[in-house]
Amino acid sequence: MSVFALDGGLRAADCDADAGLLAGGAAGPAALRPLLETVVAALERGAVERGGPLPRGGPEAVAGRVRAVAGPVLPEVGAGAAAALDALVGVVAQGAADPADPLCAAHLHCPPLAVAAAADVAASALNPSLDSWDQAPAASEVEALVCRSLARLVFGAGRASDADALVTTGGTEANQLALLLARERFRERFSGRGGAGGVRGVRVVCGANAHHSVHRAAWLLGLEPPLVVPAPRGVLEPAALEVALRGVAGAPALVVATAGTTDAGAIDPLPGIGAVARRYGALLHVDAAYGGPLVFSERLRGRLAGLECADSVTFDLHKLGWQPVAAGFLAVPDAGVLRPLGHCADYLNADDDTEAGLPDLLWRSLRTTRRPDVLKVAVTLRALGRSGMARLVERTCAAAGELAELVRGEGRFVLYGEPEISTVVFRPAVGDDALVAGVRRRLLERGQAVLGRASLAGRLWWKVTLLNPLVRPSDLAAVVKLVEEAMEEGTGA
Amino acid sequence: MSVFALDGGLRAADCDADAGLLAGGAAGPAALRPLLETVVAALERGAVERGGPLPRGGPEAVAGRVRAVAGPVLPEVGAGAAAALDALVGVVAQGAADPADPLCAAHLHCPPLAVAAAADVAASALNPSLDSWDQAPAASEVEALVCRSLARLVFGAGRASDADALVTTGGTEANQLALLLARERFRERFSGRGGAGGVRGVRVVCGANAHHSVHRAAWLLGLEPPLVVPAPRGVLEPAALEVALRGVAGAPALVVATAGTTDAGAIDPLPGIGAVARRYGALLHVDAAYGGPLVFSERLRGRLAGLECADSVTFDLHKLGWQPVAAGFLAVPDAGVLRPLGHCADYLNADDDTEAGLPDLLWRSLRTTRRPDVLKVAVTLRALGRSGMARLVERTCAAAGELAELVRGEGRFVLYGEPEISTVVFRPAVGDDALVAGVRRRLLERGQAVLGRASLAGRLWWKVTLLNPLVRPSDLAAVVKLVEEAMEEGTGA
Ligand SMILES: Cc1ncc(COP(=O)(O)O)c(C=O)c1O
Ligand SMILES: Cc1ncc(COP(=O)(O)O)c(C=O)c1O
Repeated sequence: MSVFALDGGLRAADCDADAGLLAGGAAGPAALRPLLETVVAALERGAVERGGPLPRGGPEAVAGRVRAVAGPVLPEVGAGAAAALDALVGVVAQGAADPADPLCAAHLHCPPLAVAAAADVAASALNPSLDSWDQAPAASEVEALVCRSLARLVFGAGRASDADALVTTGGTEANQLALLLARERFRERFSGRGGAGGVRGVRVVCGANAHHSVHRAAWLLGLEPPLVVPAPRGVLEPAALEVALRGVAGAPALVVATAGTTDAGAIDPLPGIGAVARRYGALLHVDAAYGGPLVFSERLRGRLAGLECADSVTFDLHKLGWQPVAAGFLAVPDAGVLRPLGHCADYLNADDDTEAGLPDLLWRSLRTTRRPDVLKVAVTLRALGRSGMARLVERTCAAAGELAELVRGEGRFVLYGEPEISTVVFRPAVGDDALVAGVRRRLLERGQAVLGRASLAGRLWWKVTLLNPLVRPSDLAAVVKLVEEAMEEGTGA
Repeated sequence: MSVFALDGGLRAADCDADAGLLAGGAAGPAALRPLLETVVAALERGAVERGGPLPRGGPEAVAGRVRAVAGPVLPEVGAGAAAALDALVGVVAQGAADPADPLCAAHLHCPPLAVAAAADVAASALNPSLDSWDQAPAASEVEALVCRSLARLVFGAGRASDADALVTTGGTEANQLALLLARERFRERFSGRGGAGGVRGVRVVCGANAHHSVHRAAWLLGLEPPLVVPAPRGVLEPAALEVALRGVAGAPALVVATAGTTDAGAIDPLPGIGAVARRYGALLHVDAAYGGPLVFSERLRGRLAGLECADSVTFDLHKLGWQPVAAGFLAVPDAGVLRPLGHCADYLNADDDTEAGLPDLLWRSLRTTRRPDVLKVAVTLRALGRSGMARLVERTCAAAGELAELVRGEGRFVLYGEPEISTVVFRPAVGDDALVAGVRRRLLERGQAVLGRASLAGRLWWKVTLLNPLVRPSDLAAVVKLVEEAMEEGTGA
């Protein structure tokens, strides 16, 4: 008798009593239906109770409301599915900073498409795991198709026949993988595989405008800290890059350029950067986490000229692609460069299974168990088509242009520059950094607006990252008006 | 005029025409409702069409069906939300290996609870991102509460006041973080922060039974490959560990023990391992990705005695916790050890914002944008309570005991050992490894059952990882019968 034996053993009656427990199987969908309705109703109620872009009262007030509803986190006896969903989804919705509200525009934090959020349910209910074929027979094929298709879009017709992409948790993981691939490529080239000697060999070179995840990735991977090229105008300039590469001559280098900076949405001059990198034998990674989706638009993709020459590209659809998190990608022009990620684990990809035709999936990620985040992307691309994605991208960028005009029209503001994607950066014509920071926090505290902040050219600015394709001219005017009002209070005017 | 200007500018009419586009906001729930029904119907149809634990025909047949439905991945003109959801969710459901089917029992791949899958929708629809407070005011507090609560459960009353946990994409990322924390801790201790000298200083020591992600993490982090202690009986034995630690005397070491091995569900003798690690000044990480949830059960948690002495613990609720992927955790007895993950990015956690009371969240992960995977966990714990989780854990473990008895009762099989959690490992009394591998593949190919494989004690075994709490005695008998039948064909009997 097993030490685990239940009194009386396993009983079919217990299973009958628990019908409706699981999301999968033939009975799962029927179990899901009423619970999904509970969730939708709680989302509806939460949005009404919030009544704006974010909850009122600031961190302590919000945390207090959450604690009142969410505790005890682990009661001895459960509250039941409906009660738990209603309470917790309700309080999280009420206390959300909702990017679907046009006044929530601080970060690269997009309002997800309803079609994508709905598709995500199937991932949760079926729970395929992409680390082996026998956990995800169909989902793994969907992933392969979407990855190749997006990689072809990124690298264009000329270079795309062997292009592929990996799905990541976001731009951060994509940048990590890019640095890792460079580390391993140079390790192979300079000191043979396996030895430890080459690990610190690759030098990452990036602009001061690069995302912080590049620095964190170098640290994670045990590399030297990146060599930072000054970028006083907010972009990595080829001439400055050349000076830096000359300084590290001899060392294998990975240049990281940015197509859509976090602070200002600026696009580095990729053709010039690519030429310099090639001249110095450096690899080129382009972090297009933000700007990448311009490729959907015939009108706008020219802004990313030079992208197709990169050795790897971070591409992200949970920013300018309206996907629920996570929907990151690392695209490469040639799937062969992904070989260093190959990894053998007998229970997942034994040689005899691979030879017998069971696909090896373990090289597609450093994760093991892995959710099919790609499913919602596949459904979105199919639902909207290239032209539908282009329309949303174009409309979002147009909104930034209109907001910039509004700001420029007000004598009280200084505009940082013409938006290159969908970020508008401005500050008061008169007033210091403390005023900028204070206005932003005041709007947050009151639940009126979520605006971002950016440190650029030695000063602090407001940052409005527009990612809502349904933003209206009246919303843009409301942003300006709220800032003006909060500014007047701040200066005591 | 902006280069992005749309013909005629932004028009409110375009927004009206696109009502129903977004999942969030006050109108989002109404947009979601019909799409969720489309998904549920497609899941229902897919399960019926599949009619078993996985699709028939093997990889080529499944891929062909997917390609027929999913192409073109990026059409020029979209198919619309309903059509795209219906087609793609349908084909992924039809082609799923569904862990809710009792005959799908190969991997640590669990059937998710309906309540958890439903809660996950709220994460997708609201899209909070846990890298800053102003993207996730309420969700960040829910995460903090759940993490502390689970960490207290893991470390027990004695040691838990400062315990905390980080949410990860799974056991793999949790193990990576554990190695990273050890690397940084020793770096600080031996050579001061910032310098590169200490990076390769920490030596990872694990049993041959440890998960492959430990090895991959060492590689990722630029550490020496782990020192592997032979584990002929499937567990890391304190005496063998002591020999290994003596061999690396002087080097700072991280011992990795496993509480629930991937291959056999074996639990390393933690008290003995902890004593040896302490004696040699080594840190101890326990990978309890599989066995961790035994802590929910008063009856079973004694099997994890010694866990509370670990310096870090991998704990995972997408295995024996019935969560949709991802639901991983790294628990630590003292939140202070997480300090090396601290990271500053002005736009997310500027000092003046932190001083003004906006919580800094960036140290909770190496990711930046981050989905609130914790919401479904919070809802599940609340819905089931400790006793409900315990009941599911106990029932699942009991099923393994019953299957082991069935197998032992058949003269044709050899049982690897008494199950310690919910994994049953066996092989034919007569027959070679090729027979074992062939039977498994035959059952996959025909869509009859998803069984796992394990290499143990120099031979190949079938592995049945039971994670379905609704498994019935008749299902267990069906597993045995299918294996017998496929084996007879394999031997030509
Ligand atoms: C330019 C850039 N790269 C990378 C990232 C990181 O992406 P994620 O937050 O999806 O990890 C960001 C995030 O804002 C970004 O702006
Ligand atoms: C013992 C053990 N540790 C870690 C992992 C990795 O967990 P995940 O697949 O969630 O990343 C596994 C996966 O099966 C495992 O069995």
